[in-house]
Amino acid sequence: MIQQIPEDQIPLHIIKLLKESKKREFQELLTELQPYDIARIFEGLPEKHHTRFLLFLSSEQIAELIQELENEQQLKVLTKLGIEKSGQVMDLMDNDDLASLLQDLSPDKIEELLSGMKKEESTIVQNIMNYEPETAGRLMTNRFVWIPHYFTVRETVNKLKSFAEFSETINYLYVIDDEKKLVGVVSYREIILAEETEKIEDIMFNRVVSVTADTDQEDVARFIERYDFLAIPVVEENNVLVGIVTVDDIIDVVIREANEDIEKLSASGKSIDFDTPAFIAAYRRLPWLILLLFIGVISGTIISSFEDTLSQVVALAFFMPMIAGMTGNTGTQSLAVVVRGLISRDMDKQVVIKLIWREFKVSLIIGITCAILIFFIALIWRQDPTLGIVVGSSLFITLIIGTMAGTIIPLTLYKFDIDPAVASGPLITTLNDILSLLIYFGIATMFISKLM
Amino acid sequence: MIQQIPEDQIPLHIIKLLKESKKREFQELLTELQPYDIARIFEGLPEKHHTRFLLFLSSEQIAELIQELENEQQLKVLTKLGIEKSGQVMDLMDNDDLASLLQDLSPDKIEELLSGMKKEESTIVQNIMNYEPETAGRLMTNRFVWIPHYFTVRETVNKLKSFAEFSETINYLYVIDDEKKLVGVVSYREIILAEETEKIEDIMFNRVVSVTADTDQEDVARFIERYDFLAIPVVEENNVLVGIVTVDDIIDVVIREANEDIEKLSASGKSIDFDTPAFIAAYRRLPWLILLLFIGVISGTIISSFEDTLSQVVALAFFMPMIAGMTGNTGTQSLAVVVRGLISRDMDKQVVIKLIWREFKVSLIIGITCAILIFFIALIWRQDPTLGIVVGSSLFITLIIGTMAGTIIPLTLYKFDIDPAVASGPLITTLNDILSLLIYFGIATMFISKLM
Repeated sequence: MIQQIPEDQIPLHIIKLLKESKKREFQELLTELQPYDIARIFEGLPEKHHTRFLLFLSSEQIAELIQELENEQQLKVLTKLGIEKSGQVMDLMDNDDLASLLQDLSPDKIEELLSGMKKEESTIVQNIMNYEPETAGRLMTNRFVWIPHYFTVRETVNKLKSFAEFSETINYLYVIDDEKKLVGVVSYREIILAEETEKIEDIMFNRVVSVTADTDQEDVARFIERYDFLAIPVVEENNVLVGIVTVDDIIDVVIREANEDIEKLSASGKSIDFDTPAFIAAYRRLPWLILLLFIGVISGTIISSFEDTLSQVVALAFFMPMIAGMTGNTGTQSLAVVVRGLISRDMDKQVVIKLIWREFKVSLIIGITCAILIFFIALIWRQDPTLGIVVGSSLFITLIIGTMAGTIIPLTLYKFDIDPAVASGPLITTLNDILSLLIYFGIATMFISKLM
Repeated sequence: MIQQIPEDQIPLHIIKLLKESKKREFQELLTELQPYDIARIFEGLPEKHHTRFLLFLSSEQIAELIQELENEQQLKVLTKLGIEKSGQVMDLMDNDDLASLLQDLSPDKIEELLSGMKKEESTIVQNIMNYEPETAGRLMTNRFVWIPHYFTVRETVNKLKSFAEFSETINYLYVIDDEKKLVGVVSYREIILAEETEKIEDIMFNRVVSVTADTDQEDVARFIERYDFLAIPVVEENNVLVGIVTVDDIIDVVIREANEDIEKLSASGKSIDFDTPAFIAAYRRLPWLILLLFIGVISGTIISSFEDTLSQVVALAFFMPMIAGMTGNTGTQSLAVVVRGLISRDMDKQVVIKLIWREFKVSLIIGITCAILIFFIALIWRQDPTLGIVVGSSLFITLIIGTMAGTIIPLTLYKFDIDPAVASGPLITTLNDILSLLIYFGIATMFISKLM
């Protein structure tokens, strides 16, 4: 019956069921939907239906629904539920999702919300919030299955049966010793292939790849991507197992980190999406633009110091935007290569030297090609070989400097543990703008007598 | 014993085992390592040890190893193995990985390699290669487990046992009807919780989220990310199940798509990484730079058409880089917001109108703020209120136009199914450069008598 309702009719049908108080049919329909879709339907419903909608759901279902909502909506729902019910729901939420909901709230509000939860669950959430943001500790969940090393396959399967409802993902079983230290991992595949009487110790994989709770989330992502894992165990420094990070969280990390790189490289302002209000979006974008404005004024001052040269040969102004633009672009090109390369590559001295040398060769090839091209363009257009030489040789030098700045600056920042993407538009552009103008007008001033 | 070897000693130890022909110890060591790490060790070994290394591995192990190597290395290994063995290895490789290895080879070479494979396996690979690049069909694997709808849980577990070695990921079991149409999905969790005698039909989830073979890989990634799936089924148009796409491939897709967006937004040239030779990197970067060079020449022509204005008021040149730079940046900011926003958001008319209106308000706020700021700077620096008004009002107008161009152009491209990121540096920069110069000098020319 359910399958016969076309997808776009579902919201209307749900309103009908809510109005007629048909809880059983409502439940039948909902169990066939994904939490993400239920959340979209919930959001789309008129506000007045929300209370009954939530009333018709079990705590488990609300926990699933709430994880697919935006922070603001999550709080609204929790408030609607009241302390007791919201506590039950939060007990069932993934700890990492709950921690990320709570992190932006005031201490009072956090305490109020946590007060309805079971003691052991709220302690876990508070522990997670003690880890630095963007680390494995913040992403991990404690909803995983561990088994003692002395278990047999049969005992393992029995334990699994009792935990199946509970664990976020049962894809790997982690094996621990008497001190709770991680000693092995077993996959489903091995459990299914093994005899019931075999010992877990004998079929487990010993060299477990794990991360510590303070591992940066980008490194966690790198491990999961490299090894094609569905989850990775998180240990304390003494190798005691404390949680797992699952692949679905890692996809979010990868998307978020890529967005951050783009934000920084294009100086486009932090976390602006389609729903950001105009005032906030403008507020986040303005710092970069104002910075660029002052950089522009500095460039202007440099140009004004060559006022004599410029007023004697106004044609010099024609090539200014081209030289500044190209120097900026070659710098950004190198920057993008370095920033994205660092994501999938471990850096050592040899790699760095090889990269700098490669970029130097690139800059030579680019510099020579573009210099020759602009020489002929200037010659044909302005009928002035000296102007061609001035513009061509300036471009040659600025392209080399721009490329090297775009390579060496992010590498240096990385070396000092600063995110290389902050070198972004602003820093590279400033430097390249100023250097290119100085070089261009410097060379022009040297040739001024021949240019007139 | 194995665990006692520290990680950095492993390669040396392996060379020792190879030299002494200790195949058993070699195997013991290797079964404890991840394919990714084995591949890095293999690459790091001196070439002369490669043949024996491969000789010591089973076909299954070589198939796992080879999937972690670069295309070039993969071909080297396959050639070393000879037709028969390489056929066995390719039979065991994931079809999607094999297809992506083969896609760049000549038809002759493809035929040669496929000739050693089992007929049914090579047919599957050839089928995959018939799908468009960057679609679900190209990413999917046929190594998954399906069960008929009339199976009981016990029958299912038995089938699983016989397929456990074979299927790439057994996380979900897909249920098909007599015509091979996808009718349901069951997770491990449900299998474990169910009684052995229950029917799969009764415990399966009916409303399966699936994609068709021609679905764009970005959309596949969006589904997996939204629903936190570990795999998604791929069907033909008649709903016949033909494969699955797994989450590990999706992580690669997300990283690749983000890199492509960055390449396009920063006009940094296609797929340049740390290992790209200088000549090729320069070759890939040059088109953008040469394009920028010609754009620069066009800008120069525009400036030269205002030569009179400029030679009368040389100070106009001082503000040129600032206006062009800021217009370019506000355009790139909007572009980045649109391009990344499109990744996680379905677009409809309402969303588009709301976004354009938001960006217009943003451009007003930005424009007013920056115009006032530059007015006072110009006033203080050059002691000339008219110059301040010319620069300020030009900046106001160009910021609005730049922001709107950066919003509307990528949205229009998206509407016509063109990747909006190609609007990138070049297109937005050209337009904004040219427009900003025309507006700036246009306004200046209007005020020329007052400026002198």
